[in-house]
Amino acid sequence: MFENNTVDLGILKRRAYNLRWAVVPEGVIPLTAADPDLPGAPEIAEAISNFARDRYLCYGPPEGLPAFKEAMAAFYERERNTQYSPALLFPVDSAASGIYFTCKAFLDAGDEAIIFDPVDFLFRYSIETVGATAVPFAIPAGAAVNMDRLENLITSKTKMLCLCNPLNPTGKVFTKEELRAFAAIADKHDLIILSDEIWSDIVYAPHVYTSIASLDEATRQRTITITGFSKSYGLAGCRIGAVMTANEQHFERLMATSLHRSTIHGANVLGQVAATAALTQCGYWLDGFRQHLHRMRDICVEGLNSIEGVNCIAPEGCYVAFADIRDTGLSSQQVADRLMADAKVAVVPGLKQWFGEGATGYIRLSFATSEAILTTAMHRIKNNLKGAS
Amino acid sequence: MFENNTVDLGILKRRAYNLRWAVVPEGVIPLTAADPDLPGAPEIAEAISNFARDRYLCYGPPEGLPAFKEAMAAFYERERNTQYSPALLFPVDSAASGIYFTCKAFLDAGDEAIIFDPVDFLFRYSIETVGATAVPFAIPAGAAVNMDRLENLITSKTKMLCLCNPLNPTGKVFTKEELRAFAAIADKHDLIILSDEIWSDIVYAPHVYTSIASLDEATRQRTITITGFSKSYGLAGCRIGAVMTANEQHFERLMATSLHRSTIHGANVLGQVAATAALTQCGYWLDGFRQHLHRMRDICVEGLNSIEGVNCIAPEGCYVAFADIRDTGLSSQQVADRLMADAKVAVVPGLKQWFGEGATGYIRLSFATSEAILTTAMHRIKNNLKGAS
Repeated sequence: MFENNTVDLGILKRRAYNLRWAVVPEGVIPLTAADPDLPGAPEIAEAISNFARDRYLCYGPPEGLPAFKEAMAAFYERERNTQYSPALLFPVDSAASGIYFTCKAFLDAGDEAIIFDPVDFLFRYSIETVGATAVPFAIPAGAAVNMDRLENLITSKTKMLCLCNPLNPTGKVFTKEELRAFAAIADKHDLIILSDEIWSDIVYAPHVYTSIASLDEATRQRTITITGFSKSYGLAGCRIGAVMTANEQHFERLMATSLHRSTIHGANVLGQVAATAALTQCGYWLDGFRQHLHRMRDICVEGLNSIEGVNCIAPEGCYVAFADIRDTGLSSQQVADRLMADAKVAVVPGLKQWFGEGATGYIRLSFATSEAILTTAMHRIKNNLKGAS
Repeated sequence: MFENNTVDLGILKRRAYNLRWAVVPEGVIPLTAADPDLPGAPEIAEAISNFARDRYLCYGPPEGLPAFKEAMAAFYERERNTQYSPALLFPVDSAASGIYFTCKAFLDAGDEAIIFDPVDFLFRYSIETVGATAVPFAIPAGAAVNMDRLENLITSKTKMLCLCNPLNPTGKVFTKEELRAFAAIADKHDLIILSDEIWSDIVYAPHVYTSIASLDEATRQRTITITGFSKSYGLAGCRIGAVMTANEQHFERLMATSLHRSTIHGANVLGQVAATAALTQCGYWLDGFRQHLHRMRDICVEGLNSIEGVNCIAPEGCYVAFADIRDTGLSSQQVADRLMADAKVAVVPGLKQWFGEGATGYIRLSFATSEAILTTAMHRIKNNLKGAS
């Protein structure tokens, strides 16, 4: 399923946007946005085709198609040990919009929300767009989580703790003990927990994923769980995610904020059909994808660590490698620029705008591609950076 | 293409939400939300299937797929006599979200925007959601447009004139002369024109559609044109519309407001693929659909006017009939309730929440169904209301 020849560069060059094949110069390998180069599960394509073939693409319900809601709840019960009622979860236009709606629903201007540092830019962006303040909590790659420092960041204005688990870009998968400590702090200070679980399918053994809402009832009640289908199944273009809660009042607040009931926003039905097929039929495919990614991770991390001045811990989850390039003497932007210009490989520089201050001195590479493409890219990177430090 | 037997009630009962078949009690015929009972064009289903079959559903560009943008611009040039650059138009999650983003982009708290009365609730809702005030301008069914009264509504706080053309729910199609008068008022008071053209394909001869932006360059520059694919092609579930402007600064403002560049919102790629097929391959289908609707309009309007106490002018566009039921001595809600309970036909009562004050004493019926279903529904309505007045 994930052989070198399954990657269709012709299609990718026409379809893969967001810093990827369709927008980089010819000859450049993009290891940028975390969107797979591998084609998706055939069952998803078939479900979309079957639904479209009936030629009825009517309005779906604002709260989501029943089949989607049930599949999502069944998945969380089976795979995440968390009970969610289909009635208290709804599909959204992407995990990104789920994060945004949650910030909009629970933060007022002047409120504060804790985000990790480094972390995906969407947290700070969403918090600031609704007029609140993002307070970064440093979790450097490979470092222990310092819960005392976290507690020192909490003020009377703090309303929300934003978890990104697994943590993009460092690939950290939080242990049950760490999650218990987060939950205790949230409980003590009466914080909403936003748990972004979009990467939760992509975890490498021996690491094990725990949803924070599975810990206990009090934590389940204060958590808004958000997930999506772009990372696990390559459905970014379908724009489909889900927001889940155990609390009816939270559900009402989220639904009202989403503007779904007015039809201003909503999750398209084909995305819901695709996601339902993924949840109910594509477990075998996801297993294969994860195995492939595990091998790609090892190739990528070994390749990076073989370069003088580059240090990369193996990510426990996600399909991105977050490499420390400080010992090369170059900045993140300098490394990204020379890899682009001379090695014809595009990577994401560890700029504040993408991942926060804590990404300074790092670059991020996506390894969700074929072995052939990744090996070529690593070879080019190695040749380019070997004389740098 | 639009025979009685092409309507698949089994599928509609599973898929048609938003007050329609999937949510009304068994046996009820819903003439509620303006979403067709007829299956869509086969070319659209095929385009979706073909795209899905490649199993690459990557991130699309925030500004939209090039093929969609080009098809939209070509359509407006060919069919609406309006030049839009593909670079200054972008797909949105629905015409509804286009209206909302336009209000959000151009109205501040305290600003005023003129809306028609009656008109679809989305205008008032969007304006109020962004903290501005909707000022209703009465255009009663069948009445002339009183431009002097319009000008009297304009204050120093008025920033926008919201056109809904054709006008849902009365079905009025504005003449070129009326549009010129709107444009002159907008010019005099420096107003943004929001032109909602989602119904512009559904116009019955001898009436002819004119896009206000086609009038002259100054009007094109101040107009934000919004359209969608749910009315013409039954793609409400695909959630796809477009926002067009001739003004680079307006484009930037709309794109920034949409949050597309952050990936928080965006138009899904399958919706864009469906819409592109509609625009480039389905003109013949739309002609057939319009012919069918013309016949259904006549059946519906004749049926309504044959009932004592009910008066309905023939809509010039849209596939809804807006019937004056005041002479029955019943209220809109009373008529809707007895039709639902006794005649097993669901209609939309002319409540302020749906269409504004000007809808008081009216009911709205969608006639985008088969002749058999419409005839049955009209028969039931006639029998139910004949003794009412």
